[in-house]
Amino acid sequence: MLNWNNLNQVKAFEKLQALRDHVRLQDVMAGEQGAERVKKYSVPMAGGLTYNFAAKQVDDEVLEALGKLAEETQLTEKYEALYNGEVINTGEKRLVLHQLTRGQLGAPVVADGTDKRSFYVGEQEKVAAFARKVHAGEITNAEGQKFTTVVQIGIGGSDLGPRAMYLALENWAKQNGQFRMEARFISNVDPDDAASVLKSIDVSRSLFVLVSKSGTTLETLTNESFVKNALKQAGLDPARHMVAVTSETSPLAKSSDYLAAFFMDDYIGGRYSSTSCVGGAVLSLAFGPEVFARFLQGAHEEDELAKNPELLKNPAMLDALIGVYERNVQGYPATAVLPYSQALSRFPAHLQQLDMESNGKSVNRYGEPVDYVTGPVIFGEPGTNGQHSFYQLLHQGTDIVPLQFVGFRENQAGMDVEIQGSTSQKKLCANVAAQIMAFACGKKDENPNKSFAGGRPSSIIIGDQLTPEALGALLAHFENKVMFQGFVWNVNSFDQEGVQLGKVLAKRVLAHETDGALKSYSDLLNI
Amino acid sequence: MLNWNNLNQVKAFEKLQALRDHVRLQDVMAGEQGAERVKKYSVPMAGGLTYNFAAKQVDDEVLEALGKLAEETQLTEKYEALYNGEVINTGEKRLVLHQLTRGQLGAPVVADGTDKRSFYVGEQEKVAAFARKVHAGEITNAEGQKFTTVVQIGIGGSDLGPRAMYLALENWAKQNGQFRMEARFISNVDPDDAASVLKSIDVSRSLFVLVSKSGTTLETLTNESFVKNALKQAGLDPARHMVAVTSETSPLAKSSDYLAAFFMDDYIGGRYSSTSCVGGAVLSLAFGPEVFARFLQGAHEEDELAKNPELLKNPAMLDALIGVYERNVQGYPATAVLPYSQALSRFPAHLQQLDMESNGKSVNRYGEPVDYVTGPVIFGEPGTNGQHSFYQLLHQGTDIVPLQFVGFRENQAGMDVEIQGSTSQKKLCANVAAQIMAFACGKKDENPNKSFAGGRPSSIIIGDQLTPEALGALLAHFENKVMFQGFVWNVNSFDQEGVQLGKVLAKRVLAHETDGALKSYSDLLNI
Repeated sequence: MLNWNNLNQVKAFEKLQALRDHVRLQDVMAGEQGAERVKKYSVPMAGGLTYNFAAKQVDDEVLEALGKLAEETQLTEKYEALYNGEVINTGEKRLVLHQLTRGQLGAPVVADGTDKRSFYVGEQEKVAAFARKVHAGEITNAEGQKFTTVVQIGIGGSDLGPRAMYLALENWAKQNGQFRMEARFISNVDPDDAASVLKSIDVSRSLFVLVSKSGTTLETLTNESFVKNALKQAGLDPARHMVAVTSETSPLAKSSDYLAAFFMDDYIGGRYSSTSCVGGAVLSLAFGPEVFARFLQGAHEEDELAKNPELLKNPAMLDALIGVYERNVQGYPATAVLPYSQALSRFPAHLQQLDMESNGKSVNRYGEPVDYVTGPVIFGEPGTNGQHSFYQLLHQGTDIVPLQFVGFRENQAGMDVEIQGSTSQKKLCANVAAQIMAFACGKKDENPNKSFAGGRPSSIIIGDQLTPEALGALLAHFENKVMFQGFVWNVNSFDQEGVQLGKVLAKRVLAHETDGALKSYSDLLNI
Repeated sequence: MLNWNNLNQVKAFEKLQALRDHVRLQDVMAGEQGAERVKKYSVPMAGGLTYNFAAKQVDDEVLEALGKLAEETQLTEKYEALYNGEVINTGEKRLVLHQLTRGQLGAPVVADGTDKRSFYVGEQEKVAAFARKVHAGEITNAEGQKFTTVVQIGIGGSDLGPRAMYLALENWAKQNGQFRMEARFISNVDPDDAASVLKSIDVSRSLFVLVSKSGTTLETLTNESFVKNALKQAGLDPARHMVAVTSETSPLAKSSDYLAAFFMDDYIGGRYSSTSCVGGAVLSLAFGPEVFARFLQGAHEEDELAKNPELLKNPAMLDALIGVYERNVQGYPATAVLPYSQALSRFPAHLQQLDMESNGKSVNRYGEPVDYVTGPVIFGEPGTNGQHSFYQLLHQGTDIVPLQFVGFRENQAGMDVEIQGSTSQKKLCANVAAQIMAFACGKKDENPNKSFAGGRPSSIIIGDQLTPEALGALLAHFENKVMFQGFVWNVNSFDQEGVQLGKVLAKRVLAHETDGALKSYSDLLNI
């Protein structure tokens, strides 16, 4: 029997609160002690990655307290319940099955009369077969020409994750002979978004992937119309250029407007859908089904690691609990995600959705207000770019912002240059190492304006190269981290009721059924 | 005589602190009172823009207190000192003259024996003449072909601002016959960044703009080598494909490696350099010098407005002071920038640098620690995309995050589609209006999970269209807002010592002169 208690009812949390400011990074990261920490505080992940948390404000005592918190809040038991098909999304009364898109973690999950793993695998196979036909020139445009570009039309989870994953592997695929088609993305209802993408491609050689689980997303349907108009104006038949990714019950599912339809279901939230057909269609078309399968494999192996009840062997759980310590005990308001990899340029935007939409909640699983803070603000840009931008505040600002670095020993594109005795890749890596230490230990200077207080915690995920497996592991790590944090905070990480009110009011504006300030704003904007 | 006092020594601040939680948005924004606020709390800006702050937690009493704070902290007097050439950047002992790149605001400023306005105008004219020759085919590649692409090589302020401005005007320029050359940007020392850009362009038809004030920025010099290698490998002479934007004293200034050199100086900080040659070269090449001049004109007009000591006629000062109220009285830790315009997709990243690098400081102008919070975390993505992502936390999370919306009545690209009775542009505008009200007033629901507390403050900048003038005004508004906030917090907004330590340590890593934890991290990363 699982206990779903609020964090401030958990005994282990009391102990943890007593450990506020227990570890002074400036001390523990100095000298040989620091060197030892870097070697010791390291946990293997899947995809050849390592989670290193030496520069976090923890020691064996804090870790023990976090371990007890994990036990008392039954984190791995709750995860087990989730992947075995319990109704974890209590708000919407749904199972939560995104992990099942990449592998079977426990018992078979049967829902709606179907084995769900078989259903997800079946849809992947449909996507793979379709993508192979496109690549082989068996599915073409009306003139028999091969498609060269795939354009995803979707918003939120149907955009941010797949887009971030595509960018993450684009150079890798080109360098490794796996690049099949260029991908582009249309998301915003701002007509300039679709216009800009359409102007930059040859629509006659483009395949559009329309992604909407419900089949009713306003932005996506609007952009579909936009694209269909453009296709018709070019003398093309839209039905030969479009596929749908949707749920079986959606209005798009059986429409003759599409070359094919691939299915997801209500058990996969948008922000968790990169490993479903939502990511699968565009990624399989862009890089081939084999690359997508490798991506899934990395994610599955990471999911397996998250089962381990031993805190120090479960990187996602560890990362999650350190985050709770920083948020609820140390009182830090935000977290920065800083990948030292240009390929991960949009990964922070994906994590921003994943984390803030999942855990930006004020009520617990029973709808009762919680009286502690939950999900933090998440933001970030790739290094070294960020160093020349907002790092000033991270180093010398009045707030402490915990940092999540990611770095790789090798680049993806296989082009590099040596100047001043080192390659660009070495410079990139040297910078991330230097930043971790600058944040942790700081440096005194006679001029206070040039002093660095230090004591600013960070962790780093390190790998050899950003491969499909590494990317899958990275994605699953953060999904599972967010899940564990939701369990600790006792919130439902899988609904998003906070997005509804705006939709309702926007409809009212468009129907001109407004009064008061909403009417005044509508007038101001000439609606 | 100017007083430079800490915020907590300012009497008007005491009064302001007594007004914490003085205004309940759920009340004042409801009914006719709300409609009146929208009409009343509105200030004209340059470029046809309006700053509307009806949904901020202020009323006439709070505004009066803010006005007294402005007076006592001498905000417009300090601005006057700045544009008249006082050494406002005390840390580096420099004048602060970026406003002078777009117009003369006060007395002539003579420094280094030169009238600085004439100097900036002279460089703009050099850029304009060069750009016209490139467009006319008088400056070409070795084969006499016109250049079709301009690639900016720079990082931080030499990248984020110019890139955001380019993206902001790209569609507008295409639609208005002002599009001359495509622009691309290389910034990161990650070699995959340069590799990716180079693979996507025809280098034989590309002109590279190398931007580094000091001429010593590691990333930029590394990427220059990278590009030169690529040019040589393509059998091209790099000197025929590169121009430099730098200071007159830099090693790049008189090198025969460049077709031309354009100058800025130490009085223009990187993050304030979009209106200098740093933005001027790439924007004049991409859109023509006339468009760049219109952009400067918008910025200059906004700078003029910032002179007004009357709070309600000075939108930048008003925005700044409301931000101080939110940060130091209400205690909100972050601010989100949410442009409802895909063209402004990278504008939040520019503001993130502008704001966080300027005011992320813990010591005052005299190097003494301050005991109040200064610059907040800044983040954002364009709407409606953000609505399907992190807005969940903004609506229902445990922290309140003040919001800065931007919206336009018309799109740029001139393509739109009507479905369900409205165009995409109307839908976009309806969404921003709806969001403001949802955040301000919230909505009670029997199910607490579907309840919205409201009380979440926002402002909106509204314009007809994102034109060059509007963009200039928007940019200057935020530059001046950040400047005024720096004055209130009594920090130096124009240096960035917080970026230095990381550079020093990175050099040590590359020289293999490390021990302790830094050595361990270097080993982990195979440096």
